[in-house]
Parts: sequence; C-alpha cells; structure tokens
Amino acid sequence: MSEKTRKMNFKLKRNRPVPNHMNRQGNDSKPKHKKPNAKTGKPVKPVKKPPVRVSFLGGLNEIGKNITLIECEGDIIIIDCGMAFPDGDMLGVDLVIPDFTYIEQNVNRVRGIVLTHGHEDHIGGLPFLLSKVNVPLFGTPLTLGLVENKLREHSLINKVKMNVVHAGSTIRLGCMEVKFLHVNHSIPDAVGFAIKTPGGTLVHTGDFKIDCTPISGETIDLSGFAKVGDEGVLALLAESTNAERPGFTPTEQMVSESLDSLFRKAENYRIIIATFASNVNRVQQIINCAEKYGRKVAFSGRSMVTYMDVAGKLGYLQIPKNLLIDIDMLKKYPPEQIVLITTGSQGEPMSALSRMAYSDHRKVMVGEGDFIIISANPIPGNEKSVGNIVDELLKRGCKVIYESMYEVHVSGHACQEELKLMHRLVRPKYFIPVHGEQKHLRKHAELAEFLGMDKKHIYLADIGDTVEICDDYMKPVDKVPAGRVFVDGLGVGDVGSIVLRDRKHLAQDGLLIIVASLDVYDGHVISGPDIVSRGFVYVRESEDLLEEVRQLALSILEDCAEKNIHEWGDIKNRLRENISRRISQRTHRTPMILPILQEV
Amino acid sequence: MSEKTRKMNFKLKRNRPVPNHMNRQGNDSKPKHKKPNAKTGKPVKPVKKPPVRVSFLGGLNEIGKNITLIECEGDIIIIDCGMAFPDGDMLGVDLVIPDFTYIEQNVNRVRGIVLTHGHEDHIGGLPFLLSKVNVPLFGTPLTLGLVENKLREHSLINKVKMNVVHAGSTIRLGCMEVKFLHVNHSIPDAVGFAIKTPGGTLVHTGDFKIDCTPISGETIDLSGFAKVGDEGVLALLAESTNAERPGFTPTEQMVSESLDSLFRKAENYRIIIATFASNVNRVQQIINCAEKYGRKVAFSGRSMVTYMDVAGKLGYLQIPKNLLIDIDMLKKYPPEQIVLITTGSQGEPMSALSRMAYSDHRKVMVGEGDFIIISANPIPGNEKSVGNIVDELLKRGCKVIYESMYEVHVSGHACQEELKLMHRLVRPKYFIPVHGEQKHLRKHAELAEFLGMDKKHIYLADIGDTVEICDDYMKPVDKVPAGRVFVDGLGVGDVGSIVLRDRKHLAQDGLLIIVASLDVYDGHVISGPDIVSRGFVYVRESEDLLEEVRQLALSILEDCAEKNIHEWGDIKNRLRENISRRISQRTHRTPMILPILQEV
Repeated sequence: MSEKTRKMNFKLKRNRPVPNHMNRQGNDSKPKHKKPNAKTGKPVKPVKKPPVRVSFLGGLNEIGKNITLIECEGDIIIIDCGMAFPDGDMLGVDLVIPDFTYIEQNVNRVRGIVLTHGHEDHIGGLPFLLSKVNVPLFGTPLTLGLVENKLREHSLINKVKMNVVHAGSTIRLGCMEVKFLHVNHSIPDAVGFAIKTPGGTLVHTGDFKIDCTPISGETIDLSGFAKVGDEGVLALLAESTNAERPGFTPTEQMVSESLDSLFRKAENYRIIIATFASNVNRVQQIINCAEKYGRKVAFSGRSMVTYMDVAGKLGYLQIPKNLLIDIDMLKKYPPEQIVLITTGSQGEPMSALSRMAYSDHRKVMVGEGDFIIISANPIPGNEKSVGNIVDELLKRGCKVIYESMYEVHVSGHACQEELKLMHRLVRPKYFIPVHGEQKHLRKHAELAEFLGMDKKHIYLADIGDTVEICDDYMKPVDKVPAGRVFVDGLGVGDVGSIVLRDRKHLAQDGLLIIVASLDVYDGHVISGPDIVSRGFVYVRESEDLLEEVRQLALSILEDCAEKNIHEWGDIKNRLRENISRRISQRTHRTPMILPILQEV
Repeated sequence: MSEKTRKMNFKLKRNRPVPNHMNRQGNDSKPKHKKPNAKTGKPVKPVKKPPVRVSFLGGLNEIGKNITLIECEGDIIIIDCGMAFPDGDMLGVDLVIPDFTYIEQNVNRVRGIVLTHGHEDHIGGLPFLLSKVNVPLFGTPLTLGLVENKLREHSLINKVKMNVVHAGSTIRLGCMEVKFLHVNHSIPDAVGFAIKTPGGTLVHTGDFKIDCTPISGETIDLSGFAKVGDEGVLALLAESTNAERPGFTPTEQMVSESLDSLFRKAENYRIIIATFASNVNRVQQIINCAEKYGRKVAFSGRSMVTYMDVAGKLGYLQIPKNLLIDIDMLKKYPPEQIVLITTGSQGEPMSALSRMAYSDHRKVMVGEGDFIIISANPIPGNEKSVGNIVDELLKRGCKVIYESMYEVHVSGHACQEELKLMHRLVRPKYFIPVHGEQKHLRKHAELAEFLGMDKKHIYLADIGDTVEICDDYMKPVDKVPAGRVFVDGLGVGDVGSIVLRDRKHLAQDGLLIIVASLDVYDGHVISGPDIVSRGFVYVRESEDLLEEVRQLALSILEDCAEKNIHEWGDIKNRLRENISRRISQRTHRTPMILPILQEV
C-alpha cells in the first residue's frame, strides 16, 4: 500500500459511519448482484468490501515472539507482542524480540494492541515496543496484571494506557471490532479474538486448548466461537504448537489425580515441585494438595514469587489462610510438612531448581529426604539441561519424578482433534496456520485440507509476509521488515551478525593477540612483539608454540621494515595470514588473530 | 593398592598355575569348610579366592567414552575404549576421551583390550590410547575392520597387534579367560563378555538388545549367557541406556515393513534416507527395498562411505550387482529410480543431510521431488538441530518423514523386559549397572532390586571408582584418575578448564582490549591507549562508548604515572576494574577486559 493510499484511507476512516455489512458477512458473501433496490427495482451495484491485510512480525517458522498485525481501511491493530529465547548459537544474547520498524513507521495508524494471554512469548516484547511508541493496550485482568509488572520494571508504567477487557466483551478499535473469546490454556484468563473488519471477520485463536473440566474458570467459549462461525468468518488464524500430536490434550484435572497419589507416596519426604511460574492453575492444584495433606507451601524463584503475587492479588489463586510460608521459615517445620514450589522446570542454569541441584541455593539444601516432582515437559532444546539437573538431584539421593508416565504435566495447546473442532466451529473461508515452526504449520495445513478445505484457501506464511484477504482471494501482497532483534544487557539491536560471528569464532578457538610498537620513522620494532592468548591453549604448557609465534611475528615485522612496507593494513594482513597458517599447521585450530600495532 | 602389592601380585601371577576353581564358581560359592580331605578325613583349609577389581575410566554418569578395567591377581584387561561427543558448554572441543593415566601407569600389567563392538563410544578413544601405549586388541571382524580404518588415519596401523576373535570363542589374557558372546545391537558383530578370573566370573553385556528375528546373523547367544549363568557368575555389568523404558525393544525387522510401505508411497519421488552410518543392518534393509522397487542406491557422507566400504568388504553388507552408483552419477537416472543413503540423522551441522537442507551440498539439491526419511531418533541434546533441519527441508518443499509414528527406527538397546531376561539368564551374585547417566543407572538398579536382588549386592559406581568384588563382598576400595580429556584439533588435553572458562567468557560478551605504550622512565602514555573490541558491540554504532572508555583508560594511566604507580599488575588491575565497572553500568555486559601495556 503506498503512502498516499494509506493517508487517504486514514482520512476516510475518520469520518466513516459504521458500515451496515459489518455485522453480516459470510463464508459465501459474494457481492449481492441479484438483490434489487427497493425503490427502483433495478439491481444495485455490489458493495465491494475492502481487503483485510495480515502482517506477521513474528511467530511463524519459529517458537515465540508472536506478533500479528491486522490492517483494514488504514487502521491497524496489533495482536500480542512476544519475545523469544535465544537459540544456542546466539551467544550471549539474553532474549530476542521482533523487528518493530513497520510499527514505528505506521504508528499513527495503530489503534491498539490486543493481548491474548500473559505468557512471555505473547507479552515479553511489549516493554521494548512501548519504549519506542505509545499505543494503548487491551487485555484481560491477569494478562494486564503481568504486563503492569513488566512495564514497572522498565519505568514505562505511567506512559502506557492499559484497558481491562473481560472475556465476552467487544471493543472497537478504529474500523474494527474485537470480541474477546475465552479459551483454555496453561495460564488463566486467556482469550482468542473475533475481529470484525469492514472486509470480513477474522478469528485469531491465540494459544488454546479445549478443557471441558478446567481447574478454574469456564470451558473455552465454544458457543462464542460457534456464533462467530454462524455469522461467517473470512479467515481463521489458529495456533499450531501441537498440530503434530494426534488426539486430544488431557484436561488439567488429570494432574490433580497424579499429584494426589504422589503426595501420598511422598508422605515422609519434603516435596519440591518445579513448574512454570505462569501456570497458576497448576500451582493451585499443588496448593490444594498441600492443604489436603497438611503441608505448608513456600515459593522459590523470582518469577514464581512475582506471578503468584499478581495472580493472588487478582483472585486467580486461592490460598487458604496460614498455608503460605516464607522460604526463610522452612526450617521451622518438619520436612514432611513442606511443599516447595519452584521455578527451573526447564533446566534453566540460574533457576532455583538448578541451584538446588548443584548445591548452590542459599536457602534450600536437597538430599535423601526430598521428593522432587518436575511438573512440566522439556521444551525442545531443553532436554539435555533438564536431564542434567535430574541426574544431579538423583546423585544427591533425591527421589525425582520426571518421566511422562507419572502424568504430572499436560500441555496447554490443542492437539489435532481440538484443532479440528476449532475449524468446524469457526468454518472459515481462508486459513493461515500460526504459532509454530514449519513442521507445525505444515501439519496444521494438512489437517485443514483433511477437513475438506481447498488447498488454495490455505496459506503458509512466513514472518515479514503481508497477506491480503478478501472474499475473492487470499494472497501475499507485500513484505514488511521482520526478523530477530537481539537484546543483550541494556543493548537492543546492537548485537548483530558481525558481533555474533566474532563471538562464535572466539568461542571455538579463542584468540591470539600480537602487539608491537613500531618506530614511527623506519617501522622497526621498538617494543614487542608480545603475544597474548585467551581461550586458545593452556599457556604454561604451550610456551614453545607461543615463542615460535613471537619469533615469526618479529621476523615479519622486521621484514616489512626492511622492505619499506609501512601500510598498516598490509602489515597486519601479513601477520594474520602467516601466523594463522603456522598455528593451523601446529594445532589444527584457527583462533582469532588480532595484530595490534602502535607507533612511537 | 600400593605399588608394592601390585608388584608382588604381578610376580605371583607369573608363576601361578591355572587354579582349579576357575571353572567352577557359583553364586553361593562360600569357602567349602565342610569337605573333608580324602586322606586325613580332616576338613581342609578353605581356598581363599583372590578378589576381582573393576575400575571405571568412563561410561558411568555420562553417555559415551565407555571403558572398563578388570583386574585380578595383577593382570588387567581393558573392555572397550570409547570417546564421547562434547556437550554444548565444551566450546570448540572436537571430542572427549577418557583419562588414560591409570593405564599408562600400569601398562606392563595390561594383557589386552577386548572390544564389544565398533561404535565410536566404544572404540573412538583407541587411537589416543594406542599412541601412548602398545596393547594388543581383540575383537570381532567388523569391529577390528572399523578400528583398522581409525588406526590407519592416525598412522598407528603397523604398531598395534589386532587379533580377530569370533563370537563363541574364548581367549586367555593373563590369568583370565574371556569368552566372546554374540549379542544383538544396532551394528553387526557385537559381543558381550564372560570373563573367568581366579576370583570368579564376571559378565559384561556390552551394548545389547534381544532380537529374535535379526536382519543378519543370529539372535543374541541366549544359551551362551545361560550356560555362563549355570556355571555361576560373581558379578554382572550390564548396559543401562534404555533402563527407563518399559517393555521390549522391537525387532529391527519392523523397520523393513515401514520402509516398504514408505517406498510404495514415495513412488514418484527421489528417496533420501538419513541413518547412522554404522547401522549396517538398516542400510541393508534400505538396499533390499531399493532392489525390490527397482531403484539405484548412492551413499552420501564420508562416514557412510567408509562404513559401507568396510562392511561390504567383510561381507556384512550384501549389495546386488549394479545396484550401487556413485553420487556423481545421480543425474543419469530419473529421480524416482534413486535412493540416496546419507549421514546427518542427528542434525550434525557439517553432515550431508544438513548441507542438503541448507542448499550447501555440492552434488545434491533437494526440493519438491524429494521424499526424505530420517531413520533415527534424535539422541538427547540433538532434538533442536534435527528439528531445524526438518524445518529447512519442509520449507524447500520436500516430504519429510521424521515422526516416531512411522516406525522407521528401532533402538539398539535393551528395554526393561530384556534387561530382566539378561539378569535371569546370568543370575549374578553382584550387579553394577553400566553405560548410562545417573537416571539410567538408578533405574537399572531398581530393576535388579525388583527382580529380588539384595540392595547390598548392587553398587552404583562412578568413573574413577575401583570396586573390589569377591564372594564375601563388593565394595569401592580405591580411586583411579578418571575424567574428561578434551581433543581440540591436534591438541589432546591442552584445552582445560581455564581455556574453556575463557572461551565461555568470550562467547558471552566478547572482549575489549586496551593497549598503550608507556614511557619506560616516567610511566606516561607515549602511544595509545587504543581500544580494540571483538564480539562486544557493533563498533560503528558504539563509537561514543568506546571513546568514553579510551578517555577513562587514558586518565587511569596518567593518574598512575602521576602517583608513581609503576607496577604493571597494579596498573592493569586498575584499568580492568574501572573499565569493567563503567561498561557494566552503560551496557549491563561484562566483556573480557584485556589491558596490554608496552614499555618504550
């Protein structure tokens, strides 16, 4: 869309009455050629609906940093703004956020950010976006409670307008109406959206599962989704995390039974349970068990304390009086009257559970009297670190429940049968699978085909794609800037491919610095060359090699002086190439070679 | 054991006749107090058997680098000598081998190395050990064929004596007799050992499974193990890889059926199958399928070519005439008449499959016409990289079969029911679970307890342990040097904890070098300070910060000169501390700070 069109649309929108067709578009809503005008009896010119554009800044072909833009008649709404955790090859990177360029360029058209739920991969990018642009937020109470914490940490709390919306309500954002539809997920107060635009209705499921017996709150708003389906849905965007898994995700209640039997089994032990801090319902079940079996509960891990604080204040967590104790009070109770709920279920190196496993926790020492339950599955990529922690705990004599056979965890995402149900409830004309890697998106697309959807009505998008949807077609029309922005310490985006490449090189074989002072007049060596190495070889055992390198450097420098080569770039290249070759011959390694010359 | 005792035992052994009791010791073989002397009628003094010692240099609390020492009456035999792959935090390390100190110190007592099978985690450490000590090898034909290749690469082939032993045979090594017992595994020609020592018989299973319908060769030598059990076994050392898995590992034959149906499904595609190069039987099945469906076979990946070459020459792989083609000939055949068998099933970055996925393979371009089967499960820790490759292949339009539901892979290790059978066949007095992380060893120990074994007869050992076993007891008696020796390029052991720590530091936040030339007389700055950074920030966008650091360095250096501080250690510390603090304030990062001073 050109800048001109965009402005024009923007003006149009401001003075536009709510169009009549907004409440009535269907799967089969072709322009109604045949309907005669009541007065003249002649067929009216069909009302051409405007197209809807969907732009993906994250969440496709990756796990995390979910963020989707919906655009119609010049108005933009943003769905979620998540972060992702760095892959193993993003050395030193703390977290990954989306590229916000497109939003910054079009901020005057953004009507609001609507949030599906309070997980990091859906809200974690907000502080970074909101420090650049000011856009109002719309979310359910728990979601906004968690966002509030984040914004406070980033000193943005007074800048951003947060609007609480309860599931079931509808808000108007520019030309669009967004209905918040309750869904089940591994955090309470999650919603999906039905977005009525002048071009048709879009449904975005957010992360969801169908739990007919949830721990708190209602079953996903099946009738709400059905009603939207009845009214006609142009396109469905549905999450794909578990699209590879057949069947139906078990109810969260199942965990209750497993926990209950483990609590009985662990009668004479202190119980330590690691789970996701955001899984408020899971924590509620543990608390219920603790109460039943007369145990006190303590929380361990910063995020666990934070989440429980927010969830408790907002009424999402019911903690019986006098049940909760501070972690400092553990010693006042016999171990078998304690349940410690902790972070670290993913084997995160600095988490509370990890520190317990490696005897590095200031307040909790674990051993033979501990019964430890890991109430989570490893997220792909974390298998090894979770396994290592289990091994360490076992070595310390703890009982550890970590295998899937104990059923101490259920997923928060819809499996194939649930996805099929969502498709059948919503009955969209077009479908874009979202939230997943290529394999998940493809599997979800195949599922839609299996349900009878025309292959042409399904689009496998990638981040950076803008897809235009209207009654007649769905097609990619444009590219928007999208990618991975690395956050490292306070720096946002200042670690890029060059810095990462250098870090990888340094990580692989370390570095070797050759430093020398040269005579400003004739280029002869005045001081040095000195050799400094880090991460290359153990220096004390490699003195011969380093001396050989020093001699080689000296002869290269003197040779340059003799030959009147004074161009530093040239001298440095000679040093780098020759020394690199020699070291490779001697060691089969390729450390980073850094020649540093000074003129005196 | 003191040096003195060791020598004494050694001398004793040399003159010792083979004791009578060697062929008859039982589970319950207490000294036979009651048997009267035939001549005098008086009870004879019981013959006290010598203890057997088992030392673990690898393979416990880790996956890989399996190596176990059996010691009796001064003789030592070594079982296997494997390597391990580095963990993610062993930056730049190519492979990990055991610490051979104990073997080097006692080499004159080592009678031989017996090999269970030809996998890297059982033979990969041999070249590094054999370059230090010369010990004869004993193994089955395929195992030694693979070892031979290795030794040739390391120019050790003429130094080492290799002795082919067929399954079912027995060899004598010092005071011990080693019987080679055929087992099923994911490589042909695998064996376990029954080791008759003067102190009693030990059984070491090696890696095994029980396959009643193997692709080639016989079922594991059940009757051989049973016979050894009948004769009485002092201790069992059995592998624990799958000790967590209930049930029975399916037969390798199962893969045949799955492959067959996939070949039919892939009628119009080129088929590419990734599997372990060492899984000769798997490759045989693929070849059989290729022949059945009229396809030519090509191998891709260096290790695939090497293994198939060895296996073919030794008759472990039956390739019909004219079936095999060179990878360069691929273009001469229509894609649907091709099967390409490749390495890379673990997502290894430099493997053939990985290069295909990232369009970096010189000879194979993949796309919509390819049907790719990953006939392997990801080893823990490789899930992410395998997943990434699957995603890349899918993005290129390939069909990819990677899910366990297709049954294109079976494990080579015994599950719980098989382990139980092994225990029941061997009926040992004592048991040490081997080959596994803590969780596997514990689970295997629990299994033995479940079978009725006395807890005191089970020992959970660690590497570095020497366990003494005799009729009356099994207990740890000594520690031997054991650990991880890193191989990086040509260097063996020259990368240790300090080098690794530096690599981690550099990987995390990069480095910042402050270099300056100081006046030899008054310490004032003559040249510099110059700031060089790598892997820290993108320099062009951080000029202000780096200039600030330069100014800070200059003021510190000049301040030192003013205050007559000429001790370089002192000056460098001041630079490091102050600059580190400033950078942390500004960026929340902690790059390695390297002050380099030169005197002019």
